[in-house]
Amino acid sequence: MRLVTYRATIEAESRLGVLVDDLVVDVAALGARANVPMPSRMLDFIDLGPVALAELRALLAAANGRWPVGGALPIENVTLLAPIPRPRKNLFGIGLNYVEHVNESARSLDTAKDLPKQPIIFSKPPTCVIGPGDPVVHNGAITQQLDWEVELACVIGRSARRVSTEAALNHVFGYTVCIDISARDNRRAGQWIYSKGMDSYAPLGPCIVTVDEIPDPQTLDLWLTVNGVEKQRSNTRHMLFDVATLIADISQGIALEPGDIIATGTPAGVGAGRDPQEWLWPGDVIEAGVDGIGTLRHPVVAG
Amino acid sequence: MRLVTYRATIEAESRLGVLVDDLVVDVAALGARANVPMPSRMLDFIDLGPVALAELRALLAAANGRWPVGGALPIENVTLLAPIPRPRKNLFGIGLNYVEHVNESARSLDTAKDLPKQPIIFSKPPTCVIGPGDPVVHNGAITQQLDWEVELACVIGRSARRVSTEAALNHVFGYTVCIDISARDNRRAGQWIYSKGMDSYAPLGPCIVTVDEIPDPQTLDLWLTVNGVEKQRSNTRHMLFDVATLIADISQGIALEPGDIIATGTPAGVGAGRDPQEWLWPGDVIEAGVDGIGTLRHPVVAG
Repeated sequence: MRLVTYRATIEAESRLGVLVDDLVVDVAALGARANVPMPSRMLDFIDLGPVALAELRALLAAANGRWPVGGALPIENVTLLAPIPRPRKNLFGIGLNYVEHVNESARSLDTAKDLPKQPIIFSKPPTCVIGPGDPVVHNGAITQQLDWEVELACVIGRSARRVSTEAALNHVFGYTVCIDISARDNRRAGQWIYSKGMDSYAPLGPCIVTVDEIPDPQTLDLWLTVNGVEKQRSNTRHMLFDVATLIADISQGIALEPGDIIATGTPAGVGAGRDPQEWLWPGDVIEAGVDGIGTLRHPVVAG
Repeated sequence: MRLVTYRATIEAESRLGVLVDDLVVDVAALGARANVPMPSRMLDFIDLGPVALAELRALLAAANGRWPVGGALPIENVTLLAPIPRPRKNLFGIGLNYVEHVNESARSLDTAKDLPKQPIIFSKPPTCVIGPGDPVVHNGAITQQLDWEVELACVIGRSARRVSTEAALNHVFGYTVCIDISARDNRRAGQWIYSKGMDSYAPLGPCIVTVDEIPDPQTLDLWLTVNGVEKQRSNTRHMLFDVATLIADISQGIALEPGDIIATGTPAGVGAGRDPQEWLWPGDVIEAGVDGIGTLRHPVVAG
């Protein structure tokens, strides 16, 4: 299932939808027609767990292609927001989680040459999150080194406290795409939250694909282009710490909760690692995708 | 004004109270008696801004010592929670913000000897927050280096985006005390979120003192004891970057929002900086306070 958060019109409030071919079917409207109360927000839906997911599946099957009038709109007619427009805490980010990116970072940034022995965790505040198409803000007063990173992002479905690697994927609700934007010249004494945590630095979406459609998150191609030129292309099988290991590891010390987002790290090809280095500037357009999930496209604007 | 979040009984839901001598006066109950709707949660109250604060002040004055029955309880009869039991994003933490702590950290940890040129920002997830008296969990499977840090914490009242240092304090709602617990042996490649972000690592409280009572946050004594032995004592005038500078600095890149919490760094005297080094163990009791705000007392328990 491919779930989205959308606005039917610019004045409408955001709602939860499910993509069926090129239609956005409104989950609450679909439920209402069958006298089944269903939530209209993604986080509420995630909180309800597998029962709500099973119910939605049943409602879609029962609809058999007949949708409520007004409750199923062509995707071109709606505005997609980030699937979780306002996370309940900072996104977890993972640094240096693809081998070749460890190498390019050691050459060009201040990170170690050795492969990390444990996941390197940082965070991005909820104020970073923007939806499909929203501009990434380039603040020239603060940065001259704005960089891109495409990442598979994992959305937690069930609370996880000290879970094993074997059980970890049972705690996943689904997957989405995150572009981890960084102002490389704003790292401070090794802490990344300021360089990676500024407003608009976490494009997220376009949808959450539920785990039933991605039984193995370590088989996905991911890529990123700037102005149409490919900069990153890899596959999640090259992660140093796979999704299950990341969840198990974080959960040993930090409780993971429904709706939590883990951006799982980026492969090689970032701007800082290129020779000569390349950075994002106002007027640029970033496109990035994870196969099987979807594509994000974001202009960079001065601001 | 001294605001608290409290539970009247173990089964009651948490509510917003204001301390009047040794009574916790329920804000919503006080309002209801005068037909003035007032919120029952701290974050809702902060969101309402100066109008709600002025109204509460008027209600307290009008009450003239006659409180609603059941709406004003002896503080010994209630349970105080963290004033913001569940922040809407990670707490912002500031590293190395007192000169002598920079020195002791450079000696004993992996931080630089030079004074930082800009604030060093990190974060602690909302799942860290515990209320007065709650246990700090010592997980012996993960850490043998659990450390203490007493800090003045600032609570944002008005959104701040690219504000000046001069205007910064206008965005503060009030101040509280935070103990920034760290598992020093869980730093990872310079990132502190894991070592400082584990469950129970942010005791917070006992109240929020509104800015009118603390016009200058750079004049406050702060201290910490372990098992009754003083380990830290300093004054917020020794901060390297004062509260106004911290707010202005963060807000250049990251929007600050009502209810956001900034833990402003700790003075010298942490366990890592002592010779020989000292750590917290199950059975220990930490007490910490900021004069004019209050005292926190937390047992360390195995778990």
